[in-house]
Amino acid sequence: MSYKVIGNSIDRVDSVAKVTGKAKYTDDFFEREMLIGKVLRSPYAHAIIKDIYIDDALKLPGVEAVLTYKDLPNIKFATAGHPYSLDPNHKDVEDRLILAEKARFVGDAVAAVVAKDEIIAKKALKLLRVDYDVLPAVFNPEDSIKEGAPIIHSEKEDNIIASSVINIGDIESEFKKAEYIFEGEYETSIVQHCQLENQSAYAYVDSNDRIVIVTSTQIPHIVRRIVGQALNIPWGKIRVIKPYVGGGFRNKQDVIIEPLTVAMTLAVNGKPVRLSLSREEVFIDTRTRHAMKYNIKTAVSKEGKLLGIYMKNIVNNGAYASHGHSIAMSAASKFRPLYNFNSIKVEPKTIYTNLPTAGAMRGYGIPQVCFALESHIDDIALKLNIDPIKFREDNFINLGYIDPLNNIKVRSFGLISCIEKGKKLIKWDEKKEAYKKYYGNKRRGLGMACFSYFSGTYPVSLELAGARIVMNQDGSIQLQVGATEIGQGSDTIFSQMAAEVLGINIKDVHIISTQDTDITPFDTGAYASRQSFITGAAVKKAALEVKEKVLILASKKCGLNISELDINNGEIIEKKLGNVICPLAKIALESYYDRENAAPITSDISENIKINAVAYGVTFAEIEVDIETGKIEILEIYNIHDSGKILNHKIAEGQVQGGVSMGLGYALSEELLFNKDTGEPLNNNLLDYKIQTILDTPIIGVDFVELEDPAGSFGQKSLGENPTISPAPAIRNAVLDATGIAFNKLPMNPQRVFEKFKETGLI
Amino acid sequence: MSYKVIGNSIDRVDSVAKVTGKAKYTDDFFEREMLIGKVLRSPYAHAIIKDIYIDDALKLPGVEAVLTYKDLPNIKFATAGHPYSLDPNHKDVEDRLILAEKARFVGDAVAAVVAKDEIIAKKALKLLRVDYDVLPAVFNPEDSIKEGAPIIHSEKEDNIIASSVINIGDIESEFKKAEYIFEGEYETSIVQHCQLENQSAYAYVDSNDRIVIVTSTQIPHIVRRIVGQALNIPWGKIRVIKPYVGGGFRNKQDVIIEPLTVAMTLAVNGKPVRLSLSREEVFIDTRTRHAMKYNIKTAVSKEGKLLGIYMKNIVNNGAYASHGHSIAMSAASKFRPLYNFNSIKVEPKTIYTNLPTAGAMRGYGIPQVCFALESHIDDIALKLNIDPIKFREDNFINLGYIDPLNNIKVRSFGLISCIEKGKKLIKWDEKKEAYKKYYGNKRRGLGMACFSYFSGTYPVSLELAGARIVMNQDGSIQLQVGATEIGQGSDTIFSQMAAEVLGINIKDVHIISTQDTDITPFDTGAYASRQSFITGAAVKKAALEVKEKVLILASKKCGLNISELDINNGEIIEKKLGNVICPLAKIALESYYDRENAAPITSDISENIKINAVAYGVTFAEIEVDIETGKIEILEIYNIHDSGKILNHKIAEGQVQGGVSMGLGYALSEELLFNKDTGEPLNNNLLDYKIQTILDTPIIGVDFVELEDPAGSFGQKSLGENPTISPAPAIRNAVLDATGIAFNKLPMNPQRVFEKFKETGLI
Repeated sequence: MSYKVIGNSIDRVDSVAKVTGKAKYTDDFFEREMLIGKVLRSPYAHAIIKDIYIDDALKLPGVEAVLTYKDLPNIKFATAGHPYSLDPNHKDVEDRLILAEKARFVGDAVAAVVAKDEIIAKKALKLLRVDYDVLPAVFNPEDSIKEGAPIIHSEKEDNIIASSVINIGDIESEFKKAEYIFEGEYETSIVQHCQLENQSAYAYVDSNDRIVIVTSTQIPHIVRRIVGQALNIPWGKIRVIKPYVGGGFRNKQDVIIEPLTVAMTLAVNGKPVRLSLSREEVFIDTRTRHAMKYNIKTAVSKEGKLLGIYMKNIVNNGAYASHGHSIAMSAASKFRPLYNFNSIKVEPKTIYTNLPTAGAMRGYGIPQVCFALESHIDDIALKLNIDPIKFREDNFINLGYIDPLNNIKVRSFGLISCIEKGKKLIKWDEKKEAYKKYYGNKRRGLGMACFSYFSGTYPVSLELAGARIVMNQDGSIQLQVGATEIGQGSDTIFSQMAAEVLGINIKDVHIISTQDTDITPFDTGAYASRQSFITGAAVKKAALEVKEKVLILASKKCGLNISELDINNGEIIEKKLGNVICPLAKIALESYYDRENAAPITSDISENIKINAVAYGVTFAEIEVDIETGKIEILEIYNIHDSGKILNHKIAEGQVQGGVSMGLGYALSEELLFNKDTGEPLNNNLLDYKIQTILDTPIIGVDFVELEDPAGSFGQKSLGENPTISPAPAIRNAVLDATGIAFNKLPMNPQRVFEKFKETGLI
Repeated sequence: MSYKVIGNSIDRVDSVAKVTGKAKYTDDFFEREMLIGKVLRSPYAHAIIKDIYIDDALKLPGVEAVLTYKDLPNIKFATAGHPYSLDPNHKDVEDRLILAEKARFVGDAVAAVVAKDEIIAKKALKLLRVDYDVLPAVFNPEDSIKEGAPIIHSEKEDNIIASSVINIGDIESEFKKAEYIFEGEYETSIVQHCQLENQSAYAYVDSNDRIVIVTSTQIPHIVRRIVGQALNIPWGKIRVIKPYVGGGFRNKQDVIIEPLTVAMTLAVNGKPVRLSLSREEVFIDTRTRHAMKYNIKTAVSKEGKLLGIYMKNIVNNGAYASHGHSIAMSAASKFRPLYNFNSIKVEPKTIYTNLPTAGAMRGYGIPQVCFALESHIDDIALKLNIDPIKFREDNFINLGYIDPLNNIKVRSFGLISCIEKGKKLIKWDEKKEAYKKYYGNKRRGLGMACFSYFSGTYPVSLELAGARIVMNQDGSIQLQVGATEIGQGSDTIFSQMAAEVLGINIKDVHIISTQDTDITPFDTGAYASRQSFITGAAVKKAALEVKEKVLILASKKCGLNISELDINNGEIIEKKLGNVICPLAKIALESYYDRENAAPITSDISENIKINAVAYGVTFAEIEVDIETGKIEILEIYNIHDSGKILNHKIAEGQVQGGVSMGLGYALSEELLFNKDTGEPLNNNLLDYKIQTILDTPIIGVDFVELEDPAGSFGQKSLGENPTISPAPAIRNAVLDATGIAFNKLPMNPQRVFEKFKETGLI
């Protein structure tokens, strides 16, 4: 397809708003007499709350309410930002109260105060006295499933949230057939999203006795539901407004602070109450990325063909289920359309521990499985003495591959072309040859890693999206979507889609960036790299409906059949001859004011998407390791993506650069640490927790292989989370290439690298 | 029809919001660094602006801009809040600039300043120096059309905005046939709406370079258009938000301050600028009700049958056209479906003078014509010595009457029943008999007057209305309309309509009261008593669409045909047996989450109404005149309305009481006065201009005759403006009854009554 607006590097529609500071985020809004909410957090990782003495706090002038679990409905609910399911077997684990009746990690919310200002609120927290009955705690999932481990949720018999066996083919027969069997253990760390804008919300009861929540969320319609569920309020009584959002990375795909914020306003007769978490709180009481430990056993034929893979995966979920087992299940499925195994067997186990809750984070399990698998693949190639690229290419699935378990079909497969591009960009062959000679204190190496990723959640979850378009009298349009701009650029992409279909200038698309569940078409929100793919289909459908209505009116005007008409550059044209029939604005004006037939041209649609598309990509990294200090320097890094048609190159490049930067942190420096005995967080702040800054970040090369996928409304596939998946294993493989040392545990920070070098006798 | 929600005296949906002060009006909103705009007004009624010296004002610290007509587009525009017309012959008179190039009345806006605060802005106004070339002025329409009168708009040859001849039948032949010919002259005064909330707006350029106007208006979508026209901005670049509004009475059916407010923000790089008029400014530079002078000549047969009426009407329009001749034309048409004249001839002339601009006000010309006509009818009855009620009843049109000029058909006619009710309530016959004996200083009398009024503007203007409904997961709905709640209760009525059609509790209708042209379905707004009638049809259509979608889903569930199903009290029922099939909430929930068929139930519709309905009513008044002081006291007053089905009795009664109170002011006390030589306003404030207060207002009796009109979506006809029409002539006729003196000029304040008593020799 040739496009006019799609594919162009159009400036973000919100760029001026954001650069000038005019864009309003949750904390930029004020209500008269806004109160401040604060949370008292447990100092113990595991402790029964015997009593909470609130009288001293309540007596403090300016304190308007103190809340404990005793004041709130005794309803266990789930925070996961998933679409609701009518199937009772497909529900999230409802394992928590708004305020804990038992502390399950250091930082668990045990009480809350509402006060006139922040100083009073903080004073009030100090006046609260809690009698704890401290229990033994467990921080490691392997310990947590041992006989006699303390039970974290007493309604369960053990600490296993869920475990599964996923099976394609017959793994045992593949091991029997195999010439080689390889085994490896790979482990990832607990990291945090560190999105720029902390979780923040405020709520009040409006004049019609409805609850209004303004919140920095990725999922306003889901917030509405979960607040309703947690507090037993009819969902229609709840209105959620999402202003501009300063990043989420799926940390705002959980409904964490909103139920408490609403409970606070309800405790003070509906007066507005703001609850903003500090960075320290965000680190421990929002969500982390699951640490996973993979044990992999792989069967390979004499000819170097991958026959079967058997993965055991133990997942540290922390204190509450949040997204629960679905992240481990995602990790067990999204890697499958990559290598052509005869058999795949995966056994994930998701386990409670007394640590902060792990939940959704960019990649949703795939950064972990990709680190394990792609490290393992390189280990095999090394042992077989095959070039790791050749080994991969010999084993990739083919176009048309259908996953037998979820029936997802590979309709476009640009990974081999991505690898070709990457090889050239990094000068793979020349440097491989040259670096063989490096043996000094600074060693250089090349590594790469591939991944596959889905576009949205079909068929696991419902994929529903809505869009509404109203054409103005001047031929411009308003576009409303329920999908959320959270910094990724989706508003710009949706505007391009509407402009493309309608043949108008992007300046004539006025997108409503704020979502408001009262008026915004229903959409489950920003996650699963779904928006361009899923919501894009809804925007296209709405735009096509509007276009058809325009052309019907134009056809009445000129007599030509609508199939002979088109809209180009804001004008109705005759397709064949190209001549202009009339300006679109004339049709639009008449649609409002024609005495006989006036009916403004609108579309208010919903689309239920029942397809998925597999995106691919590869990271190529060139590194230099300082053997003496353990410091790894990235010399060059390239991410090349097969995400179908690229809708806006500039935004796509930005997305890739941000994702790779996160991947670098995951590879080299990020790890949330806890006291091994008490479970206390050791580095829950941005000084001690080391994310990549611009000074740490090398120039990140970005390229794309653009094969239009038939499943994408404009040939597109997912790109949002993809870039963060493969940098860590690519760097790990480059270090392996440089040093011969296999780092199977993230992050590869200088201390750990140094220790490993010591341990392996390199120094 | 029997209804469950319609017709009930349900509490206003906004009552709590308004009583608690939570409801936000335009002045309750703030933007950061909001600037203040102020207007410099002409001290002369007619003067060419030779030059304006702005340098001193600009030098004042805190002054950000000074505007004169030289800084603004030289585009003449019309302020009238009418639907746009595609017909070039059906356009409003475009006769004004945003800031005047020539002052045409005392108070005309000649310059504007924008400053950091109100004090600086006021200081800056004083630093502006204007060189005027003062011209002769004219204040009386009769003088204004004389040879040699100063021309107010130099592009015209005279001061006549328009004049017409409306003709039904052959008036001359009726005069020839007549046994009696009666003549009379009747005159009304200039009055002002005095709505509680003054005109106020603020505007800014948003981060997407679009213009946002928050304004207290009845007509947000029309504000959008007129601002676009006045400033030559594409309409789609303009967003108008209407918060709660504190009354309008059609004074906010003109687009007066919004173009200037936008010009101000554009002059300061889009920074927010607020322009709020003071009460003194509202009196002179918003709109007044036209003073009209009627000369009537009527042909009556020997049997007392009205044969023909010939009315000449001279209309004082003030300095600018605003709604122009359409109010005189309205006055010439809406009285027609009342008396069964063979011939009607009306000659209205609308004339410019150097006074504040007259425009739309509650009743839109009918209070004036009703005063003239109903006074005249009583004069005839008195002269023929026929009871004025009998005389009227002998001459009323019949059910089925079709006006030959506009084809409006009378489909329900409850006026005679209204009169019966009124007679009983006021004890007409007994008191008439008793009061014959009153001859002292306090004389009592009874009077009545009838009126007819239309429902909306069809066929004069396009009648388009939109509504959008979204059903929530709990079976409640959001309802969006473009029609505006301005205090009259329309939000409650629309909520009742949706609840009625959908079989749900009104508490489950969440109406979005704020209109926002970006997202609100298109509707031209609150005027012409159109909303319940016109927008009501749109709400019904949207609700029916939603209901059908619900029943289709329910039918799939239970197998019964949708015609066998209904919704009752939030449950799907089997019509015949009455048993519950399932809660509506279940259908609603599944519409969001059914994996196969999910599609939230919504409707986003527009309705083009091509019908009108004639409403009727009557006022009965009992008064006591103090002969010595000229003071008229209202002892009892009743308004009985035939407005079809009454949708909410409590709100309807409130509407009638407010309207009658306005009518009392019109009858007894209100008149905007000007210096006869200079045109300076003498009483443009609420101390010197006398509106009725609660202490002046008697108990107002209200009743209805409820005949369902086939043209109304729920049998309803107009009621909004109707109550204010007939009190003045009813009181005038009661004074005539008490004293024998015919007051043919409003208002009948003590001074004028006293003078008339002197003049007629009564004292």
